[in-house]
Amino acid sequence: MSVAASPALPLGDHLCENGFECVEILPSTNDAHGGVIVDLKDPMDPEIFASLLKSSLLQWKKQRKDGVWIKLPIELVNLVEIAIKEGFWYHHAEPNYVMLVYWIPKTGCTIPPNASHRVRIAAIVLNDKKEMLVVKEKRGKFHGIGVWKPPTGVVDAGEEIFEAAIREVKEETGIDTEFLEVLGFRQEHNIFFGKSDLTFLCMLHPLSFDIKRQELEIEAAQWMPFEEYAAQPFNQKHESFKYTIELCIAKMERVYTGLCPRPVSSFFSKDLSYVYLNTKDLDKSS
Amino acid sequence: MSVAASPALPLGDHLCENGFECVEILPSTNDAHGGVIVDLKDPMDPEIFASLLKSSLLQWKKQRKDGVWIKLPIELVNLVEIAIKEGFWYHHAEPNYVMLVYWIPKTGCTIPPNASHRVRIAAIVLNDKKEMLVVKEKRGKFHGIGVWKPPTGVVDAGEEIFEAAIREVKEETGIDTEFLEVLGFRQEHNIFFGKSDLTFLCMLHPLSFDIKRQELEIEAAQWMPFEEYAAQPFNQKHESFKYTIELCIAKMERVYTGLCPRPVSSFFSKDLSYVYLNTKDLDKSS
Repeated sequence: MSVAASPALPLGDHLCENGFECVEILPSTNDAHGGVIVDLKDPMDPEIFASLLKSSLLQWKKQRKDGVWIKLPIELVNLVEIAIKEGFWYHHAEPNYVMLVYWIPKTGCTIPPNASHRVRIAAIVLNDKKEMLVVKEKRGKFHGIGVWKPPTGVVDAGEEIFEAAIREVKEETGIDTEFLEVLGFRQEHNIFFGKSDLTFLCMLHPLSFDIKRQELEIEAAQWMPFEEYAAQPFNQKHESFKYTIELCIAKMERVYTGLCPRPVSSFFSKDLSYVYLNTKDLDKSS
Repeated sequence: MSVAASPALPLGDHLCENGFECVEILPSTNDAHGGVIVDLKDPMDPEIFASLLKSSLLQWKKQRKDGVWIKLPIELVNLVEIAIKEGFWYHHAEPNYVMLVYWIPKTGCTIPPNASHRVRIAAIVLNDKKEMLVVKEKRGKFHGIGVWKPPTGVVDAGEEIFEAAIREVKEETGIDTEFLEVLGFRQEHNIFFGKSDLTFLCMLHPLSFDIKRQELEIEAAQWMPFEEYAAQPFNQKHESFKYTIELCIAKMERVYTGLCPRPVSSFFSKDLSYVYLNTKDLDKSS
């Protein structure tokens, strides 16, 4: 390998070995799994990037690295094609960046997969008159079929499930609630670009009663007698919605226990986590 | 608008309005939310793509479309920069394609977010001698700290949770199992590129007993007396692992009920779905 360091390439790292060789490579950090991460932030001339990428891959191969990650902010989209032509592929993308990846060893690639699921909540809010909080939506698959349904919504990355349920009810109907428990959940496949959906059916207790619907997404909202909600032909026809009705009935009869959140510290993350458990049964244990 | 149709642009759709105008746009289909989807498969000259994209956006604006999706396979990476320069941004990417998106209206963007969660299982397998199936891992955060832990793994998009639990136990230890129930679950944030993790703690019953560990990822595997597993200082130190021990004890004392899967048809997907419910309580209900 030649001595390639040059003041014309001001953006790379200089890597010197044994005092003899000096080659310029992309700035990178090591990850915890034997790979390297390149997190480019500033613009780079495409020809310089192409040259640095080639010399970097040679170095990383010598160093027996395995996975190579390159994060390119959307402003550096002009470098994506160069990396793909060098053998990289897409790992994931978010609105403002794309993450490219490459696997150096000839043995099996253990690059972990991208996020695979969307998480949703459906919020069962029953008041003391056995009325259920229901909405009609302006968009989506429920629009135009005349069905009254519980408030539903997406749990964002970083958001707690019980907090998402409280937030969605408040956003769609203006009703304040306290969270009681997760009654159960449903997993569905191939909903959205081949990903899977996990929907947590949550039970909440209303703390206010005057509905103020969100006008952008919600056509109508009301407190509906539970019997009337359950009798909708749509709910009788679709198995997963029939279970919602059965769970509500069991809950009103006080014979059903779901899972309640308890805060815990996490081994994997600095952020607060929650476990969801049948705390009623757990408290019976010695 | 000029009559722009030309045999030199063989890849676009010809859109004629009122018999007067004829403009070439990118081939697209309508989605269910008022937007359009461009699913390019064949190579296209970048200049032609740039020109068609501009005329298409003009047309879609006239048609009052809202979201515009462009799916570009990795072979067409040379077109990504052109779309980004036209105002598109990344929605998501998978190994072999990137999905770009653009929002036409001036009102709030309702493009749904990308998948937000990874889903994992941890598999509790206890035999009749109150021994637990445990492993030591060769990689990751558990490597090198000497902890015996239950088999764990990722639930792939499209995979059922209980099937993933059975598969991971078989892959890591060679043990056949039947699935009993989900004891509870844990949500953790900022684990992997800002996404959240959902880990389902699953209870399984062993159907075989001779361990055959997977050599790539597993350093060692054994049946360990439950008391010995529980007594590991690591498990006493970390709250979420202490809950695992409490749940196992409650389960061995037969006082705990979790959630069991039941198959249901889905309103949203053609694929078979499962709901996970406290079926023991539900069966008590009238």
